[in-house]
Amino acid sequence: LITEFQLIRRLQQLTPPPKGLAPLILAGIGDDAAVLKLAPGQVLIATTDLLAEDVHFDLRYVSFRQLGHRTAVANLSDIAAMGAEARYALVALAVPQSIPPRNIASLYAGMQAACRQAGTAIVGGDTSISRDRLFINMTLLGSCRRHEVLCRSGARPGDVLYVTGTLGDSQAGLEILRKRRTVRSGTSRSHGFLIQRHLMPTARLVEGRLLAIRQLASAAIDISDGLAGDVRHLCEASAVGAMVDLRRLPVSPALVKYASAQGMTSADYALAGGEDYELLFAVPRGKKSRVDALIRSGRLCASAIGLITRKREGLWTLGTDGKRRQLTARGYEHVLWPSGGRL
Amino acid sequence: LITEFQLIRRLQQLTPPPKGLAPLILAGIGDDAAVLKLAPGQVLIATTDLLAEDVHFDLRYVSFRQLGHRTAVANLSDIAAMGAEARYALVALAVPQSIPPRNIASLYAGMQAACRQAGTAIVGGDTSISRDRLFINMTLLGSCRRHEVLCRSGARPGDVLYVTGTLGDSQAGLEILRKRRTVRSGTSRSHGFLIQRHLMPTARLVEGRLLAIRQLASAAIDISDGLAGDVRHLCEASAVGAMVDLRRLPVSPALVKYASAQGMTSADYALAGGEDYELLFAVPRGKKSRVDALIRSGRLCASAIGLITRKREGLWTLGTDGKRRQLTARGYEHVLWPSGGRL
Repeated sequence: LITEFQLIRRLQQLTPPPKGLAPLILAGIGDDAAVLKLAPGQVLIATTDLLAEDVHFDLRYVSFRQLGHRTAVANLSDIAAMGAEARYALVALAVPQSIPPRNIASLYAGMQAACRQAGTAIVGGDTSISRDRLFINMTLLGSCRRHEVLCRSGARPGDVLYVTGTLGDSQAGLEILRKRRTVRSGTSRSHGFLIQRHLMPTARLVEGRLLAIRQLASAAIDISDGLAGDVRHLCEASAVGAMVDLRRLPVSPALVKYASAQGMTSADYALAGGEDYELLFAVPRGKKSRVDALIRSGRLCASAIGLITRKREGLWTLGTDGKRRQLTARGYEHVLWPSGGRL
Repeated sequence: LITEFQLIRRLQQLTPPPKGLAPLILAGIGDDAAVLKLAPGQVLIATTDLLAEDVHFDLRYVSFRQLGHRTAVANLSDIAAMGAEARYALVALAVPQSIPPRNIASLYAGMQAACRQAGTAIVGGDTSISRDRLFINMTLLGSCRRHEVLCRSGARPGDVLYVTGTLGDSQAGLEILRKRRTVRSGTSRSHGFLIQRHLMPTARLVEGRLLAIRQLASAAIDISDGLAGDVRHLCEASAVGAMVDLRRLPVSPALVKYASAQGMTSADYALAGGEDYELLFAVPRGKKSRVDALIRSGRLCASAIGLITRKREGLWTLGTDGKRRQLTARGYEHVLWPSGGRL
């Protein structure tokens, strides 16, 4: 028999805080709530994500360790998009009894590894049972100075749109996983790359901090719903339009190869594919040369992909054929009630 | 068709922040994360609770509004037990499509009402779909001065144990609900009181703050797992023993009547019943007269129920027959893996 409190004690062992944070954690896992010191002059950044089995993840395609990693990255990426440092995490689980205890330990090990890399301490949470499916909630608390915060709402016409890393890999990786019969079946090198990008994504915390400390970006958002959807979110929050040049979207060689084998373009994946956890950010004209210098020096991995325009100009793409088309794809959005109803 | 983003917009409307907090919320619902100012010299208190349908609540016995209220109180009570002020809430939902949108609006209305009463702003969250059951996660952030924090670990031998309000009502109320065929069937006045205590509990935020500001308690915990279990938690964290006098347990007349009709004692309900959300706290001998004066003046509704002893003396109860018995009931604890396994 293993009880909730035995599990909590084990999770405490699995989640030692980063050395520098320990003196700031006045009470961690095991009290009614965590007690944390925050430096004066800082703002607190808070985000939460709930991952539901068979909606956000499929245990046939992901190991528990990878799932823990992905849960952490989904949250860390939100903190990265605000330009903040990720400091404290709270984890709540509802676990069906069909999942053996060692798998929950692996889940935590995956979260702890991703959090540790980000300098983040897991300081509390809640553990309980679920009737059938696994549910994971992580809340992440970050901090930064007030003037550093990157909101979605600061983009202005004339700003240049950038994106970090490459887009669309994660979606392609998920497709490959779904088509395979087992996780262990043989994989080509480029398929392996795409799968890895889906299962073990990276949060762009270093890039977010760089933009925040130097105040280079007017707005930022992490790409979790697909570029098309997140361009729309950023533009709606900033009350602006945008023109995205599809010829400039950063895509990996592996994605180009995979997309063409599917009779698609890499831009299709880059626009619609979710869970890339790259950052989309806007840079005022006057700061463009500084961002480009960081890119040339290798300190920032990012590409210019378009321009912010006035709101009334709307949202457009410039295709490989040089033609303008309206940006229609909305990216990934959960339809909660397909038949509508009164909210 | 109602999407996630339409829901988020509606939730924004449903959760205006308390007036005083609005200037501190630099970004709320709708950005990647909430951005919050905290006063310098304060510590941050963070807690999270995940409620799973058919484990923590049964939609046959609770309305969505009541469920929202209970979700908020479960979290607010943890902040109360730390002696802090509850300031910001993040809410994550996984909603099955079988639950119509208006019920989710009611759920939020219940949370908002409880949060507003506590001076707490709902500042963000996450909404997504669930395959079948409803899952609700709330994370609550509180703050107080560092020296005010009430941890579980500060009780010392010789301290007096107190508890707020009355115990066991919630468990009795749940039993009555389970025995009734429908929520609408007729109810006696005392049954109605017990049901109300289960469905609409109160978090003891005012009492927690009073103890914290005046530094009257050496340790505190909220009673969510039942008195027996939570006495054990407090004593384990403080490395002490305790003697609980069952003749002094505060119980309502309605519970005495109900327990006797079941062939039980009210102490049985008070010891084992969970979700009372009262506070259990320890008071050093030298501060006892100040606490008793607050109780007499009506500013603090609490009762002395026992003494903290040395750890090696263990945990005991003093029964109505004047006999000492070991405190064996563990209170409510989720058994996650009944057959054990390797953690």
